Amino acid sequence: MACRICYSVLVTGSNRGIGFELVRQLVDSPLGPVKIFAGCRDPNGPRAQELQELAQKHQDVITVVQLDIGCPASITEASKLVEAKVQDKGLNLIINNAGVNIPGSLADTGKSTMVDVYTTNVVGPMIVAKDFRPLLCKAAAQFSHQTSMSCKRSAIINVSTLLSSITMCHENFSQAPMYPYRVSKAALNMLTRCLAEDLKNDGILVMALHPGWVQTEMGGSEAPLTAAESVRGMLGVITNLTEKDTGTLLDWKGNSIPW
Amino acid sequence: MACRICYSVLVTGSNRGIGFELVRQLVDSPLGPVKIFAGCRDPNGPRAQELQELAQKHQDVITVVQLDIGCPASITEASKLVEAKVQDKGLNLIINNAGVNIPGSLADTGKSTMVDVYTTNVVGPMIVAKDFRPLLCKAAAQFSHQTSMSCKRSAIINVSTLLSSITMCHENFSQAPMYPYRVSKAALNMLTRCLAEDLKNDGILVMALHPGWVQTEMGGSEAPLTAAESVRGMLGVITNLTEKDTGTLLDWKGNSIPW
Repeated sequence: MACRICYSVLVTGSNRGIGFELVRQLVDSPLGPVKIFAGCRDPNGPRAQELQELAQKHQDVITVVQLDIGCPASITEASKLVEAKVQDKGLNLIINNAGVNIPGSLADTGKSTMVDVYTTNVVGPMIVAKDFRPLLCKAAAQFSHQTSMSCKRSAIINVSTLLSSITMCHENFSQAPMYPYRVSKAALNMLTRCLAEDLKNDGILVMALHPGWVQTEMGGSEAPLTAAESVRGMLGVITNLTEKDTGTLLDWKGNSIPW
Repeated sequence: MACRICYSVLVTGSNRGIGFELVRQLVDSPLGPVKIFAGCRDPNGPRAQELQELAQKHQDVITVVQLDIGCPASITEASKLVEAKVQDKGLNLIINNAGVNIPGSLADTGKSTMVDVYTTNVVGPMIVAKDFRPLLCKAAAQFSHQTSMSCKRSAIINVSTLLSSITMCHENFSQAPMYPYRVSKAALNMLTRCLAEDLKNDGILVMALHPGWVQTEMGGSEAPLTAAESVRGMLGVITNLTEKDTGTLLDWKGNSIPW
């Protein structure tokens, strides 16, 4: 018998691009989560309108949550709101999708851009892990009879990129110099690996996922994948994760990417 | 015939620990550089006294340079001072040694610590590369008849760590959680790799070097290596670098460390 992907999920940066498509496909799935928390920096702004409309249609499932990944206080507030909704069931799955790419060559890149991109792409997911850890632990404890890890039990998925691979940098640097982005995403991979070690005894799976090069505001129109195709692949990978996948970097097809 | 290590070198964070020992061994070497720029945040402070005494003894070789790795304006000023001294010869070698480790578990680590450590360990070396690039290019051009890369021609060495290895994280995480440090040093490795790609056409070699676990203020007294032993190894590795080593992470014995 097929079973539900998980009881509850938080998706950050869910008002557009891959984040929005994740929420859309999750709510459309007959085996989707019962509770979807759609994190978004400005839920009342014009850029969140489509998400608000989707949430209106699925009021029983989707809760739009104010969550500015660059602002620790906002993350803490979001964790309290989610806690109030899920209570003792905890939160099963977090997809740290919110991220930014400010392209920059060496000559174009200064301290503020480096720090801003790092704050969004690395510090934010770290604070999310820290503040939501008690809720993830609660969810993991519901399945304590089950030794293996899974997104159904408790997991953090950090959206990374092929461009985070230090090993592969020499193959793709010239097409996409992007210092702030690459450097932050390699840092995110290390964060992922640290969290995987740190949280394994809590039964929480942590991995990094490359969504492919996707037609979004960030990916641009020349990207080969639609958000729908990418997210179908990502959800397939996420659903099938087991203990052996904690601390790994996979692409949307499930292929391993070297560090 | 043995030849000089290089004509000129800049060592950041040179008032203590590995940085000071690098300057000490370089100035003591009969084949050491003709010009050593000893970068240090507060040249007139009590913590720079030993360096100032060494510089006094070798006034013809050592120039102490105010360089606060966390402050881009200070890096720019330092590059102008070095330029005035080396002129058309350029600068051959930069050892980005300045760095910080603020140990921190997940619970202990907040946004400001993450950003501060990243700024020192990653953004600083990036601004150094950017501001000193013209001087490194000038030095590389002096050896344009020589196709291979070397520290004698033009090179940037970023002091990294074994703890920067994402691959090896599962082996050593529990002994040293250190989120801010590990995450920043993995980012520094990506920066190293990007710079290696970016600067290869300029003839500039860029690599990351793990000094070992060293008895310094940062390493603590239980570390197995003295600063003198580590630096002897590091200088041996640096002196022998060739084109094949650009974009790599090596330890002080020359062994490769996986990303």
